[in-house]
Formats: sequence, C-alpha cells, structure tokens
Amino acid sequence: MEKLILVKVGGKIVEEPDTLQRLLHDFAAIEGHKLLVHGGGRSATKVAEQLGIPSRMVGGRRITDADMLRVVTMVYGGLVNKNIVAGLQALGVDALGMTGADLDILRSEKRPVKEVDYGFVGDVKAAHGDKLARLIKDGVVPVLAPLTHDGHGQLLNTNADTIAGEAAKALAPFFDVTLVYCFEKKGVLRDENDDESVIPSIDRPMFDALVADGVVQGGMIPKLENAFEAISTGVKEVVITRADAILSGGTRIVR
Amino acid sequence: MEKLILVKVGGKIVEEPDTLQRLLHDFAAIEGHKLLVHGGGRSATKVAEQLGIPSRMVGGRRITDADMLRVVTMVYGGLVNKNIVAGLQALGVDALGMTGADLDILRSEKRPVKEVDYGFVGDVKAAHGDKLARLIKDGVVPVLAPLTHDGHGQLLNTNADTIAGEAAKALAPFFDVTLVYCFEKKGVLRDENDDESVIPSIDRPMFDALVADGVVQGGMIPKLENAFEAISTGVKEVVITRADAILSGGTRIVR
Repeated sequence: MEKLILVKVGGKIVEEPDTLQRLLHDFAAIEGHKLLVHGGGRSATKVAEQLGIPSRMVGGRRITDADMLRVVTMVYGGLVNKNIVAGLQALGVDALGMTGADLDILRSEKRPVKEVDYGFVGDVKAAHGDKLARLIKDGVVPVLAPLTHDGHGQLLNTNADTIAGEAAKALAPFFDVTLVYCFEKKGVLRDENDDESVIPSIDRPMFDALVADGVVQGGMIPKLENAFEAISTGVKEVVITRADAILSGGTRIVR
Repeated sequence: MEKLILVKVGGKIVEEPDTLQRLLHDFAAIEGHKLLVHGGGRSATKVAEQLGIPSRMVGGRRITDADMLRVVTMVYGGLVNKNIVAGLQALGVDALGMTGADLDILRSEKRPVKEVDYGFVGDVKAAHGDKLARLIKDGVVPVLAPLTHDGHGQLLNTNADTIAGEAAKALAPFFDVTLVYCFEKKGVLRDENDDESVIPSIDRPMFDALVADGVVQGGMIPKLENAFEAISTGVKEVVITRADAILSGGTRIVR
C-alpha cells in the first residue's frame, strides 16, 4: 500500500506567523501523500474574548455553547483553516480545507450530558475514508479543521487530536498511515524538565505504568489514548514529536 | 454536454434561518450537477461591529483592511460557508465548502490603488475550472465563499457576484452552464415599485438604454455587467431572479 503521513498540529504553532511558516515549509517538504489536521483554540479564546464571550474549559476540553460554536466555526473553519490553505498553496501544495461536514467525511453525535454539559461538542461516529482517500489519490492534500456535523445540519466542535485519530483510522484501509502528533516537546519526556529525556517508544503496559507513576499526565493522557486507539484499529504507526522535528524523532507508539 | 446550474445567493438569504432553510430545500431539489456561491456581508458587518471594527463601503464594495480581512475570512469561509454545507448534507446534497484558495480554484490579484484603496480585495486572474469540473462530475456540490488568494499566501476578499461569474466561465468548457443570480426581487423590474413588472429578457443594447434611463441602477449595474461578461465567454444563460423562484422565472440575460 502507498504511504500517507497525517500530521496534527495544535493551535499554538498555527497561530503565530513565524512558527506557522516554519511548519508549512516542513509540511510542504514531506514527500508523497499527506494530510494536515490543525487546532486553533488560542485564537478561538482570543476572538471570543473580543466578542465578550467567556471561555470555559473542563479537563482541557472547551465548553461550547451556541455563541462559542459560532466562534469556533469562524476561527477553526475560516480564519485558521483558510490561512493554512493559502499558505500551502503558495508552497505548491494542492491544499483543500475541510471540516467533517464537507463531503460528510466525519459525522458525529452531540456528546450526552453526564457530569458535564459540553454543549455543542461532537463525538465521531462515522467517517467517509473512501471519499478522503479518493481526493488524496488525486493529489489533493486535505487540511482538516476540528469541526464535525451530526448529519442533521448541526455543526459540532470536536477535539483536533480526535479528528486526527479518526481520520487516520478511516484512511487505514487505503494507505499505510503514519500519524504524527505535534506538540511543544520533542516527544513524551521521562523528566518534564529535561527536553532531551524523550522516551523513544511506548507500548500499552508501559503507558499504564507511566500514568500510574505520574510521568504521563494532563493533556498527554488523551493524546496517548488516541494514539493507542489508532494503532489498534489499523493505523501503522503513531509518532509524538515537536512540529519542527516532524519525521526526525519523537516518541513512537507501538502495539 | 451535461448541464450545470450555478446559483449565487446574497447574504440576506443565507443569514436568516428561515430564508436559508427555504433556499437549501429549493437548491437541494435542483436535479443534476450544481454549485452554490454565497455572500455574507451582513454577518460580516455585524461581527465586525461586535469586534469594534468599522465597516466602510464605496460603491457597494467593502473596504477590506487587515482587520476586516480577518472578519470576512471567519464569516464567509467559516460561519456562513460551513453552516450551508452542514445544512445541505442534512438534505442529502454532498456539499464541499471552498474558497478560491482551496485547490487554487480562483486566483486573484490585489486590486491596484486608484481613486479608492479597497485594501485586501482581489480581482480574479486565473481559475482551475478543470479541478472544479472533476469534483462536480464525481458528484460533489461545491459551495463557494467569496474569498480568493493571490498564490503567495495572501487571502483576498472578492465580490460574490464576481466569484459566481468567474466560476461559471471557468466551468463553461465542461458543462452547459446556467448561472442564476438571486436577489430580493423576482427579476429586473421596469418599475421598482411594482414587483410584477419583471423584464423577461435583456440584451446588451437594451441594458445600455435601461441604464441611461435610470431604470437599472446601483448594485444592479455590476450584477448585469457580470452577467453579460459571463455569456460573452461561454456561459449558456444567465437568469436573475428571487431565491424562492430559482428556475421558475426571472429575467434572462441574452446575447
């Protein structure tokens, strides 16, 4: 099977002109089939603030009421996504910006209210990997914003790591998928104060031990959970690294 | 050649839930290949106001400084476009939201400063009708936001009527294109106070006379200029009508 590199970058990288340009150049340099998933939370928070809409987070996840949904639709689907697309086109990458609603590629259900009412947040339930694969095989480079829809006209806010994991799974029948999660560090660190203490590879038992020991915590836990979920459903490998080190290092998640 | 219906709707229709739903149902009912181009000026003005950014118009065209470009990128490319896409998907239409930057379908140049500095406004210089036609022949229904790019990473604001005319021209080699411009009236009216005084068809000499007589004025002049431009470059027919009367009436622009 042909290879596909699926890169997920967080908001911080795509929201500052310098780091964004660096990322776009690095991403453009990746040969072969590829796909980019981006966040945009910091910009959303900023625009919301300017509009007088308070941002509320629970466990790293944004509470998305109707006003906040409008903001994230504007910021993720418009501002961040289209600037990335224009930037990649300038580098000769035939980018196509998409949300999960576009071509119905990622359909979700509004998260049920349990301890927390997350509002208009969607959990992915179905994907059209076939349509995405066809575009990619035609030379298109999809750029996915962290938004989905419920199939009844409702847009929903969906975590960008989840979007990346679900897209990778949906594409696994068509490509040998390498899923690269970028964040601020060179990989999962054994010592958070030592940037060079990258753990080269983590399997499930080791992950459980690292969580139990408190080495892996906070937002890293769902990131790694998504990674294990992805490799258990056909994705070939998952790499966690820094945006300026795509493909040159990081922590490899293995079965 | 196969037929294609290209519908352009203004902001007013897509920005109110009731008229938007009606439009989406009418558009979904069109059989065969189709494409939708939308505006969003009223929402842009409203969001800009909430952000404390003043809206300045000259001759019906928006002056787009850097702050306003951010607003229209959010509103046209995100808020309006993605809600239309989700709404069409709910009706079984395989919609794909795009700007001119996506797949480089509409490339423009920043308008030169003459009497007026329009700011980040782009005049379309090149189109990839081939890529758009391929998607459409695959069953995709593109939904175009009024944004383009310059090929060097800069997004530009571009009038939605212009987007519709340029997309229609670019698609003319691949389809028999009917371009439908929707606005508030049932067609071009002989008497602006009589909604039933629709002029059934207008050719170029008649247009010149109607402008000279002041029957056609204001924003209708560039709309009709775009229509004549379109039919002179291969578009089969242009219809000007009301959104709730797509394909059932209006004024036909002929050579």
